[in-house]
Amino acid sequence: MRYKPLFRSLGLLLIGEAILLIPSLLVSLIYRDGDTLSFAYTIVLLLACGLPLAMFIKTRVTSLYVREGFALVGFAWIILSLFGMLPFLFSGAIASPVDAFFETVSGFTTTGSSILPAVEGLPHGILFWRSFTHWVGGMGILVFTIAIMPQLGLRNMELMRAESPGPNPEKLLPRIKQTARMLYIIYFSLSLILFILLLCTGMHPFDSAVNTFGAAGTGGFSVLNVSIGGYNNPGAEIIMGIFMIVFSVNFTIYFLIVMRQWKKASRSSELIAFIVAVSLAVIFITLNIAPRYNGILESLRHAFFQVSSIVSTSGFATTDFHIWPQFSRMVLLMLMFMGACAGSTGGGVKVIRLVIGGKAIHRELESILHPHIVRTIYVDGKPVEDNILRSVLVFLFAYVSIIIVSTLIVSLDGFDFETNFTAVLATIGNIGPGLSLVGPMGNFGGFSDLSKIVLSFNMLMGRLEIIPIMLLFTRSLWH
Amino acid sequence: MRYKPLFRSLGLLLIGEAILLIPSLLVSLIYRDGDTLSFAYTIVLLLACGLPLAMFIKTRVTSLYVREGFALVGFAWIILSLFGMLPFLFSGAIASPVDAFFETVSGFTTTGSSILPAVEGLPHGILFWRSFTHWVGGMGILVFTIAIMPQLGLRNMELMRAESPGPNPEKLLPRIKQTARMLYIIYFSLSLILFILLLCTGMHPFDSAVNTFGAAGTGGFSVLNVSIGGYNNPGAEIIMGIFMIVFSVNFTIYFLIVMRQWKKASRSSELIAFIVAVSLAVIFITLNIAPRYNGILESLRHAFFQVSSIVSTSGFATTDFHIWPQFSRMVLLMLMFMGACAGSTGGGVKVIRLVIGGKAIHRELESILHPHIVRTIYVDGKPVEDNILRSVLVFLFAYVSIIIVSTLIVSLDGFDFETNFTAVLATIGNIGPGLSLVGPMGNFGGFSDLSKIVLSFNMLMGRLEIIPIMLLFTRSLWH
Repeated sequence: MRYKPLFRSLGLLLIGEAILLIPSLLVSLIYRDGDTLSFAYTIVLLLACGLPLAMFIKTRVTSLYVREGFALVGFAWIILSLFGMLPFLFSGAIASPVDAFFETVSGFTTTGSSILPAVEGLPHGILFWRSFTHWVGGMGILVFTIAIMPQLGLRNMELMRAESPGPNPEKLLPRIKQTARMLYIIYFSLSLILFILLLCTGMHPFDSAVNTFGAAGTGGFSVLNVSIGGYNNPGAEIIMGIFMIVFSVNFTIYFLIVMRQWKKASRSSELIAFIVAVSLAVIFITLNIAPRYNGILESLRHAFFQVSSIVSTSGFATTDFHIWPQFSRMVLLMLMFMGACAGSTGGGVKVIRLVIGGKAIHRELESILHPHIVRTIYVDGKPVEDNILRSVLVFLFAYVSIIIVSTLIVSLDGFDFETNFTAVLATIGNIGPGLSLVGPMGNFGGFSDLSKIVLSFNMLMGRLEIIPIMLLFTRSLWH
Repeated sequence: MRYKPLFRSLGLLLIGEAILLIPSLLVSLIYRDGDTLSFAYTIVLLLACGLPLAMFIKTRVTSLYVREGFALVGFAWIILSLFGMLPFLFSGAIASPVDAFFETVSGFTTTGSSILPAVEGLPHGILFWRSFTHWVGGMGILVFTIAIMPQLGLRNMELMRAESPGPNPEKLLPRIKQTARMLYIIYFSLSLILFILLLCTGMHPFDSAVNTFGAAGTGGFSVLNVSIGGYNNPGAEIIMGIFMIVFSVNFTIYFLIVMRQWKKASRSSELIAFIVAVSLAVIFITLNIAPRYNGILESLRHAFFQVSSIVSTSGFATTDFHIWPQFSRMVLLMLMFMGACAGSTGGGVKVIRLVIGGKAIHRELESILHPHIVRTIYVDGKPVEDNILRSVLVFLFAYVSIIIVSTLIVSLDGFDFETNFTAVLATIGNIGPGLSLVGPMGNFGGFSDLSKIVLSFNMLMGRLEIIPIMLLFTRSLWH
């Protein structure tokens, strides 16, 4: 590990975070909620730490090793969360540092799990910052770092590998900077469209903004105690439902659409699998919950919103799905495990990995049926190399292992199995709510500090696809 | 698929099952419970079907393809279970065919999950047969088929691959027949020792026999409603606890011991990992449950018995572990997932697969830390080939996928998540009891027929390591 470029990059990121706090500071000024100073102090602290690191550390390093890129990403998310939690502490909105860390990590990782039993009545600036972290985290440090890092002259493909939530991101454009800008434009445009549409449904501009942040980042922090259901605004529910799906599609699809490669875009096997899974889930749940609502249309509306919210790993709610029939709850749990497409703002293990895993099972059977034929797995007409396949399978195993070990630790608090298991699943999958005590109308406040820290690291591991966080705990990285 | 050798082998197996029913028939004669005819009818039926198949089908096929071996194994387990359930139906001990199938599959797969709310009062012959299926299934069709198949002149290594519960069984002896005989002798001797020891504790010969069958096969069917705890016999509990561990160790270890290769036997990384896991689990649970029992020794006794029972995937109980603290229950759930060593009579995903999976995660991290070094995974000093590694990882993924899909289907019955999830985990892992409604003092009788069939197939898939059962559902096998 070469520390100079690490600290220099970190300095730049801290300055970036200071800049990103300005909108929240402005909101707090507009609403005069008395939380302005919390932001001002945090910004000063960030600059006080960031500027010296960025300005005085001279380095001739122009490219990072892959391990350094990974380590930087993991390290940066933790540091940025530690600074990002300061407004919560300074304002007194959250008293305990562990709680504030949990909430901030939940924001930046676009998880949306909250330790707060009630959010109504919190200062507007604080609520804005809380949701804004979703939007910032949304596209991940992918775009964030790609926009900053080129100033260091780093070869960013290596960072891209750590950030882009997919097994093997295609090189979208020859130059990574152009890619980043393009992704940024798409992300910003879609967010703007959603914001305007929400305004059109009569939603207050402040609420429209925070809900846009939550949907774009597939985060799910809400400013109402009962989440989106509290607006009694079916139009907004449908728009949110559609846009959460939009933000959980691989952004390379939009890229292809912008470049008018319709054919290629429509043939993505991940997209097809995703649409099939979502459609089946909506149909199953609609039929299963129909007796509980007034007619099939109302149950369809709730089913669609909740499937969209869970599969996109946002975690907004229009109804308390914890009290749905067991079968519907299990469909949602399956979607929590699966999650969104790679290369989106969503979490979970990602559809593409399950597609590849399914093909691997099929190949295993084929190799017994026809032992003399050597078979290669293809996705979208391209062969999946052996080391990629192995990485995908190892990832799936590691993901399940983390779930098992985390559930064990969390169970020390003595809550029921459903609470513990779904709390872990909801955090590592960056979803937000689980079932039982951590259901859409519950919260994570009841866990011990140990559990909250474990769950925070689950969120980080889920968001960063495990490796960058795991690497931080290897000794040989730091030598 | 060539049908002639398939049916001829099946005929031989049916004759074998008829022979295996004779001890139960004798027991029913001794106890005059009135169930003798149930066995007699079944034996006649088996011979009526088996003899023509074995005698009149002429085939010049001397070796099976791997796929045929796998298919035969999967097919045979289902057919043998369908015939094996007849005594339950004929005697009226179990009324519903689905229930009888579930109970018989549970026996042959050494699972021990039961649909019977109470077993005390059932005829002795029936109880004997129920437990005897554990013993027969115990070493799996591994030894069973290896003892019969050589008469067909089949190359059995291929069948061995399907049956032996491990990724890559070592060729124990140059000639497979010798291996089979040796394994058979070890299995029989250990069973005999256990039987005699149980007699010495003052246990009734009948109970000593059925409990020996249950422990040797790591099955877990009991003849008392409250399982082993009902004997109030700490000596027997400790002996059973030790022997369940003995039967969940890879039998190649005993092989090495018989051949005086002590050094090689003691260096098995699977054995070491298994012992470490068991020891940690016993320590954690002892401390966790201590406040509930009279002193540390009593909690140690219960902890050791229950850990041994669960990790060996037997499923006997001395106490209702469903009411233990959440942490201890989670430790047991982890052991349920892990299971025993490969090449034993135990189930679960097998320790060796987790060892290899862990090494694969480690290699993935190393390949990022040191990208230019090509690394191979070694187990016990031998390299794990890439296709073996891939098979292990695909197996783990398939295992988890089956758990998820099965839990979804079972949830249609509307029971709680803990019941559904642990029912699936307990059946695919061939353990027996789970938690909540299917806990050690509960049973599987409340599930719908659909769920019972799904859980039966879970038992078969778990016992046969997935592939032989999955293959039966591929179209190209049957062409």
